[in-house]
Amino acid sequence: MRVAGRSEVRLDIVDKVTGAARYASDAVVPGMAHAALVRSTVGHGVLRGVDTAVALAAPGVHCVVTMADFPDVDPFYGEWVRDQPFLARDRVRFIGEPVAGVVADTEEHAHAAAALVVPDIEPLPVLGSAVESLAAADLVIHPDRASEDPELPNVCYRSSFEYGDVDAALAEATYVHDATYTFPAVYHYAMEPHAVLATWSSDGLDVISGTQQPFKVRADLARIFNVPLGQVRVRAPYVGGAYGSKGQSKYEPVTAAMARAAGRPVRLVISIGDAFHTVSRHHATIRMRTGIGPDGGIVGRDTVITYDTGAYADKGPRVARKGAYRAAGPYRIPNIRSVGLSVYSNRVPAGAFRGFSTPQVVWAGESAIDEIARHLGVDPLGYRRQHLKRRGEPFLGDDSPLDADLAEGLGVTAEALGWGSSVPTGRGRGLAVGVKDGGGGAARSEAEVRLHPDGSVEVLAATSELGQGAKTVMGQIAAEVLGCQLADVQVRLSDTAVTPFDRGTNASRSTIGVGAAVERAAEGVRRQVCQAAEEVLGISEGLILDGSDIVVGEHRQPLMELVCASRKLPPEEIGAYSATGFSGNPTGSGPLGAAAAFYEVGYSAAEVEVDPETGQVRISRFVSAADVGFAINPAACEGQDEGATVMGIGHTLLEELEFVDGELVNGTLVDYRVPRTTDLPDDFRSILIQNRDGPGPFGSKGAGEGGLLAVAPAIANAIADATGVRIRELPLTPERVWRAIQPVEPQES
Amino acid sequence: MRVAGRSEVRLDIVDKVTGAARYASDAVVPGMAHAALVRSTVGHGVLRGVDTAVALAAPGVHCVVTMADFPDVDPFYGEWVRDQPFLARDRVRFIGEPVAGVVADTEEHAHAAAALVVPDIEPLPVLGSAVESLAAADLVIHPDRASEDPELPNVCYRSSFEYGDVDAALAEATYVHDATYTFPAVYHYAMEPHAVLATWSSDGLDVISGTQQPFKVRADLARIFNVPLGQVRVRAPYVGGAYGSKGQSKYEPVTAAMARAAGRPVRLVISIGDAFHTVSRHHATIRMRTGIGPDGGIVGRDTVITYDTGAYADKGPRVARKGAYRAAGPYRIPNIRSVGLSVYSNRVPAGAFRGFSTPQVVWAGESAIDEIARHLGVDPLGYRRQHLKRRGEPFLGDDSPLDADLAEGLGVTAEALGWGSSVPTGRGRGLAVGVKDGGGGAARSEAEVRLHPDGSVEVLAATSELGQGAKTVMGQIAAEVLGCQLADVQVRLSDTAVTPFDRGTNASRSTIGVGAAVERAAEGVRRQVCQAAEEVLGISEGLILDGSDIVVGEHRQPLMELVCASRKLPPEEIGAYSATGFSGNPTGSGPLGAAAAFYEVGYSAAEVEVDPETGQVRISRFVSAADVGFAINPAACEGQDEGATVMGIGHTLLEELEFVDGELVNGTLVDYRVPRTTDLPDDFRSILIQNRDGPGPFGSKGAGEGGLLAVAPAIANAIADATGVRIRELPLTPERVWRAIQPVEPQES
Repeated sequence: MRVAGRSEVRLDIVDKVTGAARYASDAVVPGMAHAALVRSTVGHGVLRGVDTAVALAAPGVHCVVTMADFPDVDPFYGEWVRDQPFLARDRVRFIGEPVAGVVADTEEHAHAAAALVVPDIEPLPVLGSAVESLAAADLVIHPDRASEDPELPNVCYRSSFEYGDVDAALAEATYVHDATYTFPAVYHYAMEPHAVLATWSSDGLDVISGTQQPFKVRADLARIFNVPLGQVRVRAPYVGGAYGSKGQSKYEPVTAAMARAAGRPVRLVISIGDAFHTVSRHHATIRMRTGIGPDGGIVGRDTVITYDTGAYADKGPRVARKGAYRAAGPYRIPNIRSVGLSVYSNRVPAGAFRGFSTPQVVWAGESAIDEIARHLGVDPLGYRRQHLKRRGEPFLGDDSPLDADLAEGLGVTAEALGWGSSVPTGRGRGLAVGVKDGGGGAARSEAEVRLHPDGSVEVLAATSELGQGAKTVMGQIAAEVLGCQLADVQVRLSDTAVTPFDRGTNASRSTIGVGAAVERAAEGVRRQVCQAAEEVLGISEGLILDGSDIVVGEHRQPLMELVCASRKLPPEEIGAYSATGFSGNPTGSGPLGAAAAFYEVGYSAAEVEVDPETGQVRISRFVSAADVGFAINPAACEGQDEGATVMGIGHTLLEELEFVDGELVNGTLVDYRVPRTTDLPDDFRSILIQNRDGPGPFGSKGAGEGGLLAVAPAIANAIADATGVRIRELPLTPERVWRAIQPVEPQES
Repeated sequence: MRVAGRSEVRLDIVDKVTGAARYASDAVVPGMAHAALVRSTVGHGVLRGVDTAVALAAPGVHCVVTMADFPDVDPFYGEWVRDQPFLARDRVRFIGEPVAGVVADTEEHAHAAAALVVPDIEPLPVLGSAVESLAAADLVIHPDRASEDPELPNVCYRSSFEYGDVDAALAEATYVHDATYTFPAVYHYAMEPHAVLATWSSDGLDVISGTQQPFKVRADLARIFNVPLGQVRVRAPYVGGAYGSKGQSKYEPVTAAMARAAGRPVRLVISIGDAFHTVSRHHATIRMRTGIGPDGGIVGRDTVITYDTGAYADKGPRVARKGAYRAAGPYRIPNIRSVGLSVYSNRVPAGAFRGFSTPQVVWAGESAIDEIARHLGVDPLGYRRQHLKRRGEPFLGDDSPLDADLAEGLGVTAEALGWGSSVPTGRGRGLAVGVKDGGGGAARSEAEVRLHPDGSVEVLAATSELGQGAKTVMGQIAAEVLGCQLADVQVRLSDTAVTPFDRGTNASRSTIGVGAAVERAAEGVRRQVCQAAEEVLGISEGLILDGSDIVVGEHRQPLMELVCASRKLPPEEIGAYSATGFSGNPTGSGPLGAAAAFYEVGYSAAEVEVDPETGQVRISRFVSAADVGFAINPAACEGQDEGATVMGIGHTLLEELEFVDGELVNGTLVDYRVPRTTDLPDDFRSILIQNRDGPGPFGSKGAGEGGLLAVAPAIANAIADATGVRIRELPLTPERVWRAIQPVEPQES
């Protein structure tokens, strides 16, 4: 291969480095006005009204809107459960919930006037966490929504999987490991907060938004405003990081509503502080019971995961369902029961976040398996390798067969860390493996590829360029198939009016979904060139596209000549060879209703040192291995793997959104602590496992999330190895570690 | 039919009426700078240098560029002859030619600094017209270009057609009519002058321009700046009128060059005064000799047309070629010779203009035929009807057969005027017919149609919406095929990165070219739906698309359900049914190298009154008939016909660009007189002839130019009928008419 498999420099690198790259917040249209949102300072309450009179009279204000201004719309959105109105209606459910919107001639005027809006809210008791919500039978956060469980009225969604007879298996087990793990709510920390520009015209609604899912947003807007799909246009320019925070609708509906009310284009750019109050990763509590048989085999696992979904469903139900499924884990366990609960609370809503439910359950499962191995007195690596599922076995039920050799991958990772060699004094080692069904279930991607007569290529595909390098990878795929250089390929960004349909940039699916569609479209173009060569030259066997030329055996000819001869048109009148391709994963098989497109596997191995004086954990060495099938752009894959690991170090050692009675108390870039360079491993190695066994182009798999899955248990297992102390609550802050490693003082009797 | 054939209200009407519609001059991008051009005040000279120092130091100036700043580019453009640099190089050739460009932070700063640039030009004698150029053997306007005729070094292009033996036919004729006609240079008078916004980035060059030919501009820019086609993007938003003035490259290359030099996006919006100095219609002198046989039949015609192309070729060569071809006229003439000359002069360049060479030759031909009929003492209508070619006969040589019954059409037109009834005292009547091979020869159009699962439709087609209603007509075509309402269809505007290839919005070809592509794409989508119905329901025979439903016999079902069942995907994961279609007119037959796609026929009949005191011509009645094949939107067709007629009245009675030694002396909206409502016919009738015999959707033909072709001779023929005086020079201003009708004073002997 010439282009695929090489660490090509990114197509957008110059614009990104020079600042020329344009994001949603850079978009400008004539006559544009600016918006600010008024947000609730009450965590739970009845919204009795909003006094907008003073704000409306403030300088530069065009209009002030509340939900009362939109009696004709269905304002609710949410992926499976549509419970979130774009402005609060009747009730407010979290601190930071938008209650009103101000449109003014400048951002300054909009914010100044927003401060003058007075919501009239009658407070209700705040349910500050899922634990409190589950206990509160009489206080219902969504009283107009029937709960699936009348005794647990604040459960948003419940999902369960059951295989075999878990109760019997645990009853007969020689050892039952029973532990509860907690995982913190964390912030996505995309560099770019949310920004939307909405314009209504005779052409319908045009929205520019830094979104991961332009087609999903289009569908939401069409439904909310009762506009045909064909008259909603959503464009996603460069997106400054997303990690799940920019999936489905976020601020697009409210901005479109304000634009409609104002009768002019409206731009809304929120602050980082407001982004903290938009969406988060689910806090989770995982109780996991694992039964061990007399031969050390795992006979059953019973897991209950409580995901704190916060005030609105967002993608919480899907997170709960996927989490319950993935809690089964990668080991051979004949009897499985998993229950995932998405539970409402008066916190910032939780939704999709890189790894999508999986870091939480891998944290539990890979901590538990380590505890079990240590309990059994066996090597955690050997124990895992013995019981991991084999390539070709389904992950669960009748789902797709595993497309990776987990034992081998874990072995490679452990070996790179020096597993089995002597551990320096004061240090410990741990490892873990995480598996996530990738590709997002039933999903369709389409792409169009155009080959111009000068040999240059355009790719139309709706993958959002989030900084992950999708644009470059799509270009490499097309260049590889079409025989040109990457520099000859232009990959256009998402625009629902023009780029063909795509489900969204999530679930590590761009390469295997959109990439496969690009590959097929490029192959379609190639076939057209061969057909033209057959017609014009009488030969096409062995045709090679070589930049602006075609080569068939000894024959070399400019592509332009062939196109003109084939189409019987002069050069200036010819178009491009164009073809579309699609990939899809139809519904109908597997426990999740659609078979896994592939399995994203992440292996982590850590060597740590714990400072007994401070509890500070220093990662002296870290190995991450990603099973990418085939690395179309190795540097980009390593970037994904490294970035995911660092993100994982965040929730492992440092990060936690702290809520007090539903109020986020550390929601600023100063108070919320993400990894700095000094927090990174002293020595880091990323390994790409490439067996060309993925469903994507050239055998590739998705690689966006794997590196994150197993970081926390690998580090916690290393801490346990170093200190003998097991901590089941993240993050492993110095204080928490220090408290855990203190010698237990003898109780006075 | 439900949607096609109805005068549907335009899709863009609200935005156009409210001012919300966006044109190129409305476009804004962050960091945008503004440009102004420095133009030559010398009509012909050697450019020795440009002093930019003072301008460069002026407030707000980013850069000042001359051609010396672009040693690496091939700066020339022009349709067949590339002789025009985007900034003058070595020589200046007309007053108004851009010599330098200034980029500054505001338009005001740019213009102020432009006034400080000092070109150093050594004047050369000015060749103020084609007549002067042809006479000047030693003064060559383009000395570095070899002329085809060494004795006529200022001929840009010469084209000739010859059938039979004209010399013999004229020698044997019983009567040879020999006359020379002149047609004025006129201004297009688009409401919107030219505007361009150019941005360079890692994605290449992005240009927003009010152009009729985005793909042609893309090709020019790719060649000039040596960038792959796939990395040049040209977007045409709404265009505020064009009439040919916005074809091929105009200000796109110079704006892109300034943006490259400035290192930032650059916006150039020119004034109406500068638009007068950009491009015009060709002044033409037509000598036509017509031989009549003893039975009154036309035995031969010999025509020489001298088109004054001005300083640069632009589309002049093609104009000369098409004009020579069309000078053969619609009558049965066995011996034909036509020569068309495109001649350089030091005037504003002439290029495409609605009717493209044809009003000039129809002016001559239809004046001549009238003169001949009057000479023979026969009714001009009857004489024409007797000798017009019949349906099915080729226009010339082996070109396509005529797809219209000219005698019948002319009869309908004459009858509507009351031809043959008594003429009120002091008035006269005249008629004329013009035929133009339509569609622009070899040309390809592609389109994509998408049917969304809610029954709404998107059309991607690169027709520029010039105000002619193309967007609406494309929507009607798609709606008709797909069974939805026009309101459910969204037609996106041209964007070379997304809308499929199209040759351009010219030659009355949008409906028959792009429209046919849209029709075929929509049919392709319909076939896909039928296929899905066959798969899912086992039936597709007689399937009807009815908005968001499909209907097969008694069975009615939402389209969404069918799509989901067919694609085995849930509603939120499905895309659209999408198909592409194309139309093309391959090269290889007909005298022009590509057979005519259709013939655009315009019939005009006028009744006029001439004020003997002032020479003022009043059009008391006017009938225009357009053979549109099928009127997809009758109101739009009538609008085209009426608008073309009014434009024709302009060059017939009022309009002329007046040059004195190459200097345009009436290039302002005050001095240049276009028709006002008081100049329009007292009674006007537009007739649409619909025999569904065109190549476009539902039998349609193009209808953008026909109304213009025969206006001048119809009016001149009516004046001759009223006064007995024949005037062969346009425009027929009061002074010219008054002079012509003065009784000839007896010469003193």
